[in-house]
Amino acid sequence: MDPDAVAKAFVEHYYRTFDGNRAALGGLYQDASMLTFEGDKIQGAAAIVAKLTSLPFQQCAHAISTVDCQPSGPAGGVLVFVSGSLQLAGESHTLKFSQMFHLMPTPQGSFYVLNDIFRLNYA
Amino acid sequence: MDPDAVAKAFVEHYYRTFDGNRAALGGLYQDASMLTFEGDKIQGAAAIVAKLTSLPFQQCAHAISTVDCQPSGPAGGVLVFVSGSLQLAGESHTLKFSQMFHLMPTPQGSFYVLNDIFRLNYA
Repeated sequence: MDPDAVAKAFVEHYYRTFDGNRAALGGLYQDASMLTFEGDKIQGAAAIVAKLTSLPFQQCAHAISTVDCQPSGPAGGVLVFVSGSLQLAGESHTLKFSQMFHLMPTPQGSFYVLNDIFRLNYA
Repeated sequence: MDPDAVAKAFVEHYYRTFDGNRAALGGLYQDASMLTFEGDKIQGAAAIVAKLTSLPFQQCAHAISTVDCQPSGPAGGVLVFVSGSLQLAGESHTLKFSQMFHLMPTPQGSFYVLNDIFRLNYA
């Protein structure tokens, strides 16, 4: 397992899905998954998708600036740390953000998101 | 184990030590520990301390804006996600940063830093 390749593929897939069909992100989470979004704590794939699809904007485009990753220990997980900016439809300025994911392997040889923490970077 | 209490105590201790006696941070890392500092990958407590003590500033003061945390899985780890700003001695402006830590329990009932990823937030 190459953590850099896992992180790169995950980041591309995650933000493309977020920007194109946010409801489909549910497939990346499981019941044990946790999201902390701007300090708001949500657990479980269904609740996480409900949160993400109820954010107060319909369309957005993420631009990724940096992706860092590390293996998270003997269980085969990968930590992914992302910085980038978010452009909302109809808004001229962008919002900078930082986000981290803890990916865990599935028995099928894929990964799911166990931990997800998102923060806007206030200037 | 209360992840919020662990995260709060760790963050206070880490940045107070960083600002007061950076070399003493070595006690928080082990041989398996990894630091990614602005994309630069370093492994092991000794190399991490060498990196942190060789940063091109002698004195600094961290101000913490947000601390988010989540348990990282059955091994008892805690993920900590920090945003804040860094004031360097002799500089009037501050640098915004985001940093994540993966804390793992020690047999002695304490925690060490297994994963550490640091990024400045460029405007």
